[in-house]
This record gives sequence, C-alpha cells and structure tokens, in this order.
Amino acid sequence: MNPEYPGIPDDAFIRGDVPMTKAEVRVLALTKARIKERDIVVDVGAGTGSISIEAALLASQGKVFAIEKETAGIELIKANAARFLTTNVETIHGSALEKLGNLPMADVIFVGGSGGHIRKILEAANQILKPDGRLVVMAVTVETLQEALDVMQSLDGYQVDAAGIQITRLRRVGSKNMFQALNPVYIVACTRRESSDREVSHI
Amino acid sequence: MNPEYPGIPDDAFIRGDVPMTKAEVRVLALTKARIKERDIVVDVGAGTGSISIEAALLASQGKVFAIEKETAGIELIKANAARFLTTNVETIHGSALEKLGNLPMADVIFVGGSGGHIRKILEAANQILKPDGRLVVMAVTVETLQEALDVMQSLDGYQVDAAGIQITRLRRVGSKNMFQALNPVYIVACTRRESSDREVSHI
Amino acid sequence: MNPEYPGIPDDAFIRGDVPMTKAEVRVLALTKARIKERDIVVDVGAGTGSISIEAALLASQGKVFAIEKETAGIELIKANAARFLTTNVETIHGSALEKLGNLPMADVIFVGGSGGHIRKILEAANQILKPDGRLVVMAVTVETLQEALDVMQSLDGYQVDAAGIQITRLRRVGSKNMFQALNPVYIVACTRRESSDREVSHI
Amino acid sequence: MNPEYPGIPDDAFIRGDVPMTKAEVRVLALTKARIKERDIVVDVGAGTGSISIEAALLASQGKVFAIEKETAGIELIKANAARFLTTNVETIHGSALEKLGNLPMADVIFVGGSGGHIRKILEAANQILKPDGRLVVMAVTVETLQEALDVMQSLDGYQVDAAGIQITRLRRVGSKNMFQALNPVYIVACTRRESSDREVSHI
Repeated sequence: MNPEYPGIPDDAFIRGDVPMTKAEVRVLALTKARIKERDIVVDVGAGTGSISIEAALLASQGKVFAIEKETAGIELIKANAARFLTTNVETIHGSALEKLGNLPMADVIFVGGSGGHIRKILEAANQILKPDGRLVVMAVTVETLQEALDVMQSLDGYQVDAAGIQITRLRRVGSKNMFQALNPVYIVACTRRESSDREVSHI
Repeated sequence: MNPEYPGIPDDAFIRGDVPMTKAEVRVLALTKARIKERDIVVDVGAGTGSISIEAALLASQGKVFAIEKETAGIELIKANAARFLTTNVETIHGSALEKLGNLPMADVIFVGGSGGHIRKILEAANQILKPDGRLVVMAVTVETLQEALDVMQSLDGYQVDAAGIQITRLRRVGSKNMFQALNPVYIVACTRRESSDREVSHI
Repeated sequence: MNPEYPGIPDDAFIRGDVPMTKAEVRVLALTKARIKERDIVVDVGAGTGSISIEAALLASQGKVFAIEKETAGIELIKANAARFLTTNVETIHGSALEKLGNLPMADVIFVGGSGGHIRKILEAANQILKPDGRLVVMAVTVETLQEALDVMQSLDGYQVDAAGIQITRLRRVGSKNMFQALNPVYIVACTRRESSDREVSHI
Repeated sequence: MNPEYPGIPDDAFIRGDVPMTKAEVRVLALTKARIKERDIVVDVGAGTGSISIEAALLASQGKVFAIEKETAGIELIKANAARFLTTNVETIHGSALEKLGNLPMADVIFVGGSGGHIRKILEAANQILKPDGRLVVMAVTVETLQEALDVMQSLDGYQVDAAGIQITRLRRVGSKNMFQALNPVYIVACTRRESSDREVSHI
C-alpha cells in the first residue's frame, strides 16, 4: 500500500482501546501539514499511530518519530506500522517534554495528545521546527484549544489557521439514515514563515 | 412541581432503555409549540413521556394525549406522570395511525416517533389540528426530515420553520472540559394560519 | 403580550446594527436561568435587550437591570421595552465592572457581552448573586468560554453545566431546503448551591 | 504547482460570484474519491472548478471533464485551470443530463451541482462509472441528500458512506478567537464493487 494522499479508513487500523483520531479529522490534519516525500515528521501523543502511519506513507523517503507515553500505544503503533509495511516509523516511548529535545529538526510536527502540558510541548516543538515547517495541533478540550491558540498566536513568525470539525455520520437503520454525531475536534494549523529573523537562527 | 416554563433536566425523568429527547431539544420543541394553560396536546411516539410531562405542566388546565406503541414506553410515561404529579396525561397504547382519528381537535401536536409512517401521521394530524394550532416534528433521520418538510410545505395554510439543533456538551475530565457531541435533531415547527379557508372548515 | 415562557421570534424585536442573541440560544439561556415571577435579574452586555425583555416578561413582578456600554444599545433596549410594554426593565449605561457593585443582590445574572473583562465581571457578579441564584454566560469566543469555565469551576459552591449550541436553519430555496448554519454559542449555566458556607455570608 | 495530495487554500482560486466548495469539504470529497494518476474524472456542476483543478493535479496523467451550465462558471474554470497550469481539464458547457451520455467510462464522478435533477444525474452517472469507480455527491439541501441516499442505496453493487461536515472557523478579533460556522455539506461517497455481475457488463 502506497497511497498518493491520505485517507485510510478507520477500520483498516488495529485499534485496541486507545482513542483514535477519526478518518475525516486525520485527513484534514494531514493535508494541513502538507507533507513532502523526504520530510522529517514528529507525532506527539501518537496513540494508535494512525497519523504516524499515514504520514510515513506520504513521507516515504523521510522519517516519522512517533512519541507515545503509554506502552499499549507503542505496541499498537508498531503493529500498525507492520500492517502497512512502513519501515520509516520510529516509536519513542516516553514523555514528549523529555523526548522532543533529542530529535532532529522537523518539517512537520503533529500534537495529538498533550497530557495537560500543551504549552510546554508547543514551546519545545517550536525549538525543533524548521523554517517553513508546519505544526498541527488537534484539540478535543476547551483548555487545549485556548492554550494552543494563545501560544501559537503569541510566537513570532507563525501563520495560524484554526477550525473545528464536526462530523455527522449517517448510519443506516432499516430504510432510513440516522444522524449520528462524532465529537468535534479543533485543528490549529501553524506554518512557520520562512523569511522571519527568528527562524533563520534555526537553520 | 409546577414550573412556569419548560426545562426539566434529563436525569429527573425515569428513563429505562427507551431513547429520550435531550433537555435542550425538548425545551426548543416545547417553546416552538407555544402551549397555553387550557391547551389540548397530542404527543405521537411519546417514548419516555418527557415531552408529554412538560407539556402537561404547561397545559395545567388542559390535557395531554400520549400515544405510544411500546408497552415499555406506556409504563414509563405513567411512572413519569406519577413522579411529576401530573394528572392530565392520558396514555394511549397503540399505533398513531389508528388512534389519531379518535382524538378531539388539538391545539398542539408533537410528532417524535413515527415508525416509518411520517407522511400518513402528518396527514392524520392535519385533520385534527385546530386553526392557529402548532404541529412540531422532531426528526432524527434524513428521510423523516425530508418527508416532514415535503408534507408540511405542500399543505395549504401552514407556516413552516425548520432548524437542526446540534448540542455539544462540555464534559469535565480532570481540569479540562472535553467537547462531547449529542446527535443532531431537526425540529420542523408548523403553525396553522387562522385565517385560511381550509382551517375554517375545522371549527 | 405576556407569555408564560420564553420564545419571542427574532424579528419581533427592533434590532438596529447591534448583534443579537438568536431565538434558540435565547430560549435555552432563559430556561437555564429558571426565572421566577419576583426575581431580580441582571443582564450584562444587554445589546438589543432581547434577553432583558424576555426576562422581564417572565419576572413580571420582579425587575431587570440591563447594563450596556453602547449608547445605541441603550436606545434599542428602551425601544424594545416599549414595544413589549415591559415596565420593569431599567437600563444602566456604562461599564459592567463599574456598575455591578451598585446593584441589589440578584436571583439571576446573564453575561452576554464582556468586552474582554469576563474574569472580573464574573468575580463581581459572584459578589451580588443570591444563594440558589443562577449565573448564565453566553460565550462566542474560545477565550471567553475557557475563562468563564475556569472562573466558575474554581469558585466554591457552584454547579456548572456547559454546552455549545449549533443551530442549522433550513432555508427554503425553490422546492428545496438548504442547510444554513448559525454561529455556535456556548452557554455556561451556573447555580449557586444554597447550603454552602460561602453563600450564607451573602444573605 | 504539482501537489502530491489535495489541499489548495480557497483564496488561491479565482472565485467570482459563483459559490465555491470550501477547502475542508473539497479535501474530504477528493480523498473519498481516491483519484489515481491516470484516472478519468467527471465533475458535474463544476462551479468555480476548484474540485476539477485539484482532481486534475492528482490525475496528472488522466483527464477531467468539467460540466457546468453557467457561462460564468465555464470562464472561471478555464481561468483557474490556466492559473494552476493544468492542461488536462476539459470544460463542457451545458446540462449534465445531456452531456453525461457522451463521455467515456469514468473512474471518478463528482456531483456538486445538480440543478434539481439529482436522481436522473445519478442514474446517468451510474451508466458511465467503471467497476471499482467512485461517485461522490456533495449535498447542501435536505432534498438532494435524501434523494442521493435513496438512489445510491437502491442501486445494486454500491457501497455507500455518507457524512455531514460542519466546519467552524476561528476568526481572530482583537485578542480573541470567535467561533464562525460555515454551512454544513453532506458527502455521499459511493464505491462500485468490482465483483458484481452488474458492473462486469460495463467493461
């Protein structure tokens, strides 16, 4: 399997009991990240690895670092990487705050889970994001959303676009189609502007 | 308990396994119905009776007929009527199509459940709705929504206002508030215009 | 006009250019406030006065203080109060932070507009809310929502229920009904618990 | 410009007064269509051509037929094709019902605008969709949604997945981020199953 663009259905992944970003949200987060073939990608709070795996297929000549603090999550990510024959996903077991500093400069950073440390994680992510790099936060709580906006709109040199995604699946019941809501997720998509002075120092 | 207006919380009702209109939707449906103290109200597909009970409290000098085909529903409606000390709810066990024709002319008709017969139910409801009466449909499927709009916008003498209600509860988890979607419900609120020729024949 | 419960349509109000809480949100905010006939109500950032007028009709033996900093808003509130024949709405022209301290203890406080001072407004509102009083915040920004939750969930003695309301009106275009979204509004509904020590000191 | 996957921002397109599918919906519709490099794509009711252009970039060795009945739309599609240097978009000026029958068998068919003829358009589309082809309907009215579901769930040999997409943009106003809803769009994504007898006859 080597798709040209994202869109793997949810049930193609091994899922366990770990919460999983739903397909529609994953597609929007991945396209906002504009991943290129040789990109270095970091996935913070990788969960089941669904974002990591799709990112790895897009960055087929690059590399994905999947950080996850739960052992069950690490096992799932490895199982899903095996299922999709991706050899460029490296799992990192531990806390994002401790691990981000040791990573190479990244083209793309996803922040899915933050364990309540979103501000510090974003500040650490800012240190390793390349010029023109993309930072994509997925927020499922009011507090993470507000804090992600506050941090990223305060930092110099970022363009920030944010939107909530509310999906209503239509579930067939007999001859009818019932409205069935998924929980909304907010995507805060940030692009580091290439030309700013601040970024130059990172090159 | 004798509230001046609707708004009983969901968990105040005895619920069983019967699906229940959520508080916010109930409040909007009830206010769209503009129930007055002496109104005759019909609740088609009454379920747990939550709409019937709130309607009965508002129409405290009037009467509510709660039609429900499931025995479990009838028992729940009776239990909830007892809990809220409403003596003006009459349960009717059976199919709405068979029972609507035997009822007196109504000021307000709610259609919650339709068992796939929404068109015929609305045509029967139309026969017993008084001039200036209000007919309020709650639709949870695409088909019921479309058919309710089609029927009510085709009948002469009705003003039809329709809107979907999507509630996102904020659920506290630790120090955060998580977005949690309820399934959307569409309310099709119809008012029979007093002055039309058609209605005059019903007086 | 003297309705038993809220639900005045938007176009019944004189509106001007001032943004107005839409009918469905107004109904839900008003029912969350459980206004009684003799209640003292404060409406902070009253705008067009639509909440104040409906509150005044419900608290027909009580009083509503409508605080608004814009002159255009004050004029609209007076015009709407005249239209609905409410004689128990008192407009207060100025900043909520300056005016709240001079008001009598309130049964119900609505906070619609906050002008960026939501935290201080809520702390001032807390000082004049009676035991068992209801405080209802309507938030249209991430920051107001987050801060209202933070303040009210930190104060002792409050039960806090919060939910977003997303209304999709169906607009008739030819023979079809088009989905048309209104902007979502979050309602943070808070009830002061009667029995807490903190409140006793306010009696 | 030759992206590996969809995601061109709205303001990169020349737009005129023609309504345009918003970026998030376009991305989801395009990923549901799973376009491959040599695919034949048909875009019914192409409007501004935003879907056609993105499809043409993905099917870079294939071809896109953009059917649009409005002259203004045809001009916009050509202007946008020129802007994005796509040479594989062919505009077809006229009614989909008349034009679909003359097209070659397609891998992917998008139906955006239907001018009230959704049922007949889908039946005509069904005649030219290859085995394993994808048919993606974007519906903005209750009636189009219901009819698309009815037609596609009745035809043999299709897997049908449908979901509504409600986007809430966060618009920065001063130091705050205001919730701002886009109108919901329903995507009905249909895949023709390769193995059915029915399809074999189309080869």
